[in-house]
Amino acid sequence: MTHHSRLVAAVVDAPPTVHDRELAFWRDALGRPFSPADGHPEFQVAPLGSVDFEILVQELGSGEPRVHLDVITDDLDAEVTRLEALGAKRVRQIGELWILRDPAGLPFCVIAAPPERFDEENSARWD
Amino acid sequence: MTHHSRLVAAVVDAPPTVHDRELAFWRDALGRPFSPADGHPEFQVAPLGSVDFEILVQELGSGEPRVHLDVITDDLDAEVTRLEALGAKRVRQIGELWILRDPAGLPFCVIAAPPERFDEENSARWD
Repeated sequence: MTHHSRLVAAVVDAPPTVHDRELAFWRDALGRPFSPADGHPEFQVAPLGSVDFEILVQELGSGEPRVHLDVITDDLDAEVTRLEALGAKRVRQIGELWILRDPAGLPFCVIAAPPERFDEENSARWD
Repeated sequence: MTHHSRLVAAVVDAPPTVHDRELAFWRDALGRPFSPADGHPEFQVAPLGSVDFEILVQELGSGEPRVHLDVITDDLDAEVTRLEALGAKRVRQIGELWILRDPAGLPFCVIAAPPERFDEENSARWD
């Protein structure tokens, strides 16, 4: 079965002590309005105009600030299995989202998305 | 004087012990070929097809793996001064690039780029 994947966002993860300052800073640094993600108010999302990529700020419950990458796919199981074979480690699944770690241990997310988010130019096709 | 800025890339920073595995992983994870940046072979760059954004893998001399964001601007001095007023701290300048820290302490880069990289859709304009 063919499926697709693509890098779609960078997420600034901020613990509660710095979250509001981070959100205000990246909003004003990039000049883009952020708004809460549907059903996930801990994520604030800003599109980047004509650039088909997003920046998010996530309020973490705790932990250190960091930046992580988001990949979307139209077949979550197939993509996570493929990435695992490349050396990623599964951390945990949260609904239609998997948290993985890359070979250096950096967390990243793989998120299920509808087929219309993918085309031959913006994404990779896996047969 | 008017100037422009935009988010342009996410950079996976990898110390020597994991650099080659990181580069191979992200190349195969995203299905995009990486090539060395002009004059800066410590940076490997992959464009993302029609998405006007890049992913890079940087070989660090040492330190922990992380992800950082890159902003470009057509007026480096004006943009760094503007970001400093928003709460960023200057770390150091390397030629046409400034390393800054955001309010949470996360490093990010601001890089001078020619005017043709900016338009009204993909960038923010600062008057």
